[in-house]
Parts: sequence; structure tokens; C-alpha cells
Amino acid sequence: MDETSVKLPEGYQAAGVHCGIKRRTDRNDLTLIRSQRPAVAAGVYTQNAVFAAPVAWDRRLTPSDDIRVIVANSGNANACTGERGMRDTRTMATWAAEHCGTKTEQVLVLSTGIIGEYLPMESIRAGIASAADALGSDTEHLNNAARGLMTTDTRPKLTGRTLSIGGKTGCLTAMAKGAAMIGPRMATMLSVILTDARIDAARAQSWLSEAVNQSFNCLSIDGHMSTNDTVLLLANGAAEVEIACDDEAATFRQALNDVCVEMARAIADDGEGITHLVTIHIRGASSREAAHAIAKTVAESPLVKTALAGADPNWGRIVSAVGYAPSPPDPARLRLEINGHLLFADGAPVPFDAAAVSASIREQRETEISLQLAEGDAELRFWTTDLTTEYVRLNADYHT
Amino acid sequence: MDETSVKLPEGYQAAGVHCGIKRRTDRNDLTLIRSQRPAVAAGVYTQNAVFAAPVAWDRRLTPSDDIRVIVANSGNANACTGERGMRDTRTMATWAAEHCGTKTEQVLVLSTGIIGEYLPMESIRAGIASAADALGSDTEHLNNAARGLMTTDTRPKLTGRTLSIGGKTGCLTAMAKGAAMIGPRMATMLSVILTDARIDAARAQSWLSEAVNQSFNCLSIDGHMSTNDTVLLLANGAAEVEIACDDEAATFRQALNDVCVEMARAIADDGEGITHLVTIHIRGASSREAAHAIAKTVAESPLVKTALAGADPNWGRIVSAVGYAPSPPDPARLRLEINGHLLFADGAPVPFDAAAVSASIREQRETEISLQLAEGDAELRFWTTDLTTEYVRLNADYHT
Repeated sequence: MDETSVKLPEGYQAAGVHCGIKRRTDRNDLTLIRSQRPAVAAGVYTQNAVFAAPVAWDRRLTPSDDIRVIVANSGNANACTGERGMRDTRTMATWAAEHCGTKTEQVLVLSTGIIGEYLPMESIRAGIASAADALGSDTEHLNNAARGLMTTDTRPKLTGRTLSIGGKTGCLTAMAKGAAMIGPRMATMLSVILTDARIDAARAQSWLSEAVNQSFNCLSIDGHMSTNDTVLLLANGAAEVEIACDDEAATFRQALNDVCVEMARAIADDGEGITHLVTIHIRGASSREAAHAIAKTVAESPLVKTALAGADPNWGRIVSAVGYAPSPPDPARLRLEINGHLLFADGAPVPFDAAAVSASIREQRETEISLQLAEGDAELRFWTTDLTTEYVRLNADYHT
Repeated sequence: MDETSVKLPEGYQAAGVHCGIKRRTDRNDLTLIRSQRPAVAAGVYTQNAVFAAPVAWDRRLTPSDDIRVIVANSGNANACTGERGMRDTRTMATWAAEHCGTKTEQVLVLSTGIIGEYLPMESIRAGIASAADALGSDTEHLNNAARGLMTTDTRPKLTGRTLSIGGKTGCLTAMAKGAAMIGPRMATMLSVILTDARIDAARAQSWLSEAVNQSFNCLSIDGHMSTNDTVLLLANGAAEVEIACDDEAATFRQALNDVCVEMARAIADDGEGITHLVTIHIRGASSREAAHAIAKTVAESPLVKTALAGADPNWGRIVSAVGYAPSPPDPARLRLEINGHLLFADGAPVPFDAAAVSASIREQRETEISLQLAEGDAELRFWTTDLTTEYVRLNADYHT
């Protein structure tokens, strides 16, 4: 979806500003989102035992039916910062609450960026004040807010869906940031999803978890689980879209799944230094969990990823990665296709046109690795990227 | 240890030749090792569900007290080759047996190299014949044999120990190949350890497993578990060194552990494109298994590895990797040192001289990451490498 056509749902205001956490003054590093009325809020968070202060804060407050504000900063993750980090998160919430006329406990907080440094609180105080002054409902405001989440992302990630439910029209809008340290278990990176539909907190939480499991949780760029992974859903009911029956619920859930998948794919597509967005499609697994473990093992093998960077149909690396997944399938009943070309079946190689497969990888941004097992009926799609010299170069000196 | 001073133990002959599996004629690709008398043999193998034909063959034959020959080829792994691959392994054993005057079931087989191609059997037949003609007991023969195992290794890996046990003198000699696809579970790559001491098969197997668990199993370059990992120990008793008491057993086991650790470190030190040999030292873990899982998670994070390549003391990446290990320790009681500099303690950053730590990484081949937990008494050392653009470049076009 063209980001410039994505709109804020009814009853929200947003802003993104530069406050000085990032060195470059043309880069937003503080985002404020305000709901004009109390919103239902659900959250899904990193499972990393080392989690950042804002994750601890939001986890305590969600699910909720009384959230008014999200304040986010990029450039500093406020992770591994101990008690002082916890106090700083609370202070961010308090300042945002003061400027938005709400209470501290109605504010969710997001941080992303470098781990292990204390937040520059004077910059953040000034940033919250100027973001509060800049709040608005236009596409430009939404874009500025999405930019305020970015770290090494090269572009903001925004998408939306129109909701037509029960004769009313509402809207579902998502933003995300990704780039690296993308190896989720339960959720990944930062994403904020806003809707003006009315949903209760229990359903918001359940539907968000469901959508995350099929999207952000099926994504790995480098397998490194972040300390700050957070996906938030706010539903403020401003459009008076009610979800009264199962069909309407299905419509909403489908839209929510769709925007989450689109954001997960957008994160992979903007991974650091990547040249290929790769979909691993597993069919015939014994369970979704088994399929997920197999896909993740393939997705995180540096040898598979470098082969893709080189447009090399080195299927041996893929098959051998399948073999060291936690619950590997019977290799004698495994079929592997790359971009529709069959390379391996029934435990043995299949003659194929290596030049044609290599060309199909080299000439397209997207690559599909399809693995057909003979273990059961479970199916899953997982998104990943190749691994390039540029990824290494970027990450060998991000810190200093 | 200087490889040129390593000797074959008594009662063994070895040879390494070029037979045409590799394109370059100055690269050995076939190795033959013969024991003049039946030897006890133990083996530890990959746990990959996708395992190569020679792994299936050797696993069936070991432990044993009646092995005479090891035949090995490099350049082709004979993995993912189905029934034909199994027949080819058996044929290799038969040809080697014919040339060495033994039976097919007295021959262990090793293969390493590209996955998914059938062995060029005419080359192998010729190679076994010329290796049998070239068999000898000198250092040069041993060196040629070690070179016959190499794939993208830049140098042969050889070490040895003199055994002084019960008034007799024996010898323990190890060779190995590594380079990439190094992410062992139980064993990794190829290694052959020869001794002229006399040990029974049960002890040989038990002591080899013990040594592998502290060496090759504590090694990861890229986390990708090979289809061909094999470590073999042959003990032919030619030196009449007997192991009669616990003290003598301890002497032998220490020597065996030492050569395995030295080979594991040599493999890391010759990893593809690496610039740092990294030791992760875990103390205070609840168990060796927990320590292993934590070390492996840190060792396999591309973000940790790229930071080391950039001499970047980015401890947040290390601490956050600890946090997503399967049984993570309490981060509030974690201490992290790099090259003796304390960077993180008790859940919060510690002021440190970033330039000094960076210089200590940049200026040395070896880096030590020391993690002190507060969970128990278990301790473990694990070896890994950094991740460089050169690794990516090498692996983006190994196949084609």
C-alpha cells in the first residue's frame, strides 16, 4: 500500500519530531499518539528474559480499556538500564500525560535503539512538549509519527484497511519499525496498530495475539530476539463500528491479520543490507509449532542466507538445515522447491536447471522456498531475508 | 603445536592423494589410514536427521575392536544421495579393503564437501589405488592424509601428545578439518584421532564422547549442523601401552581431551573469513547444559559476531542474546567481561573505557567473553568466531 494514502483512524492525533536522541536533526526520534477518548489496548511483547523498561511498563498496563496515549522514542532502547531505566520510562509517561491531559497510567511507552545507555531525559522532555504542540490528524502527522519509530530502517512502514462492518465504516492503521535484531518469539520490533472500531479488551488481546502469531512471529532476519519487541493495538470506538456477530469479527480479524502480515513483510523487505525478501512455505507438517521450528531453522542458517545472496540454488544447505530443526521431518519424504523448481524429493537430488533457478533468484526481489513434508496437515508461511556483506558492514560498526 | 613435528603413532600408515574430486590438482582429496593390526574404534556423529551415507555406515560399525582402515574423501559429502549414496560408501569400503588386505566391514568411511552430488566413483577407485601405493609412516604421510580431509580450510589441522603410562611410551595424534557448516550437536566436522595405546572398545567410546563434549561440541562458527560430522578414535595397541589403573586412565583422558580442544580451537581459528577466535567462558551456571545453551546462543548471534568483527564492545548484544537462551539466567545477577574489562553487572551498565576495550579486541587474534552467572557452579568454555564480510563473500558462491 502506498504509505501516503494511509490515514489515521477517527479520534486519534499523532506527531513525530526530532528531539536530539539521534545526531541527525532531520531524523525524527520521538513519537506521540493521542486518542481523544479512552481506548481499549492490547499488547504482545518480547519473550526475552532481558527486556527493556518500557516493555515492563506496558506489560503491566495491558490489556486495558483505558489507554489514551502512546509515547515512543527511537535511538535509545532504555534496555539493560536497571532501576533508573524503569524510573525514566515512568517519567516519560508522566510528561506525556501532563501534555495530553491524562493520567500517567493511561500512557503506554515504547523505546528502540541502542541498548545499555540511559535515556537523555532533557531531550525527551523537550521532545514530548514539541510533539504535543505538533499533534494533528493528517497523513503528514501519521507519517511523522511512523518516522519517529525508525532506527536503521530506510523508510517508514505504514499500512491500513477500511473496515465496513454493520453498515458503518471504520479504519485500521498500522505502523512498524524493524531493520535488525529481528528474531521474534511472540512478537518483534515495534508496531502500533490503531483502529476506531469498538472492541472489548479481551477480544482485542486475543485477536492481536492471533494476528501476531501469523505475522511478526513468523519473521526472522538475524535470529536475535530483541529486548524491546512490542506490538500494540489501540481501539477507541470513535467510528462507532460495532462488532456484533461472528461474521463481523471475522472481517475485523482478517483485516488485523492482513496489516500485521504486511508490516512483517515490510520489515523483512527493509532488513539491513538485504537483497532478497524470502518466503518459506511449509506444508504437510505435524503441527504449526513443528512447521515454525523448521522454518525458523532454515531462515536463520547463515549458509542458507548467504547462498540466497549469491543466487545459488544450494539446496543441500536448506535440506541439512531442515535436518537439525528440533523435530525434523523424515528426509526421505521431503520435497523442496525454490521459485517453483523442484530440487529435492524423496531423499535424493532431482535433476534441475541450475542456471534457470539461479536466474529466478537473481532477477527477483522475492524468493519462495517451498517445503512439502509428509507428517500431517499443518501449513505455515515464514518470512526472512538473505545475508549480505552489507549487513555485516552495517553491524560491525553500529555502536561506535 | 607445530604440525611438522606431529608423528603417526606406532603401527599406522597414512597417505593423502589427489584423485580428481577437487578441480585443483595440487589439492589432496583422498585419504587412507591403515592400522597394521585390528584396532579398537569409537565414533561420535552428527545428530542431524539428514545424515550422510558414510555416517550411517560408520555408526553401524562403531564401537568395535576390529577396525583396520579409514578411507576419506573431501570435495563431496555423499549426503542427500539416497540409496545410491549408501551403495557408493560401501563400494569405497570394499575397494579400500581390497587394497589393504582386510574385509569391507573393517573399513570406516568419511566424506566431506558439497551436499547432494553423487561421488565420482571412477576417481575414487583410482584414488584409493594410488593412496594404497603411497602409504607410509613418516610425518609427510601424516601431513598428506590431513590435507586429504580439507575443504575450504586454509591449512591442515594436526596435533599430538606423547603418552607415558606404566613405564611405556605411546602417542596420541589428531587431525581435523573444519571451515564452515560448524554448529555441532554431539560432534562436528571430521576428526580422526589415532593412538597406539591399548584400550577396550567400551572405554574408547566413553572417553571419546567425554572429550567431544568438552571440545567439538563447544564450538560453533555459523550454527549450521553438518550432515557429515564425525570424530573417530582408533587405538591399535601397537605401542603396548596398557591402561591399568584410574591414574593411567586419567592421563589418557586428559591427553584425549587436550587434543580435541586443540583441534576444536584450530577449526575456529581457521573459520571462513574470520578475524577473531573467540572463547566464551561461562561460570556460575545451573548446569553444563544451561551453560552450553547460553554460550551457543551468544556464539550464534550474527549481531554479536559482527560487533566482534568491528572490534565494537557492544555488550548490549551479548546480554540480550543471553536473555533469549532456552533457560536464561537472572539478568539482574549477571556480570559480563570482555578481555578482562567489566562492562555489565547486576542488571545495569558499568562505566568502562570503550576505546581501551575496542583496542583490546582489535589488536588481538583472540577475544574472551566472560559471563559470570549466579545460578550454580557449572562452568564451560565454548569457542566461536566473528562474522566478516569475507565469510559472506565466500559462502555466497561456494556452490556454483
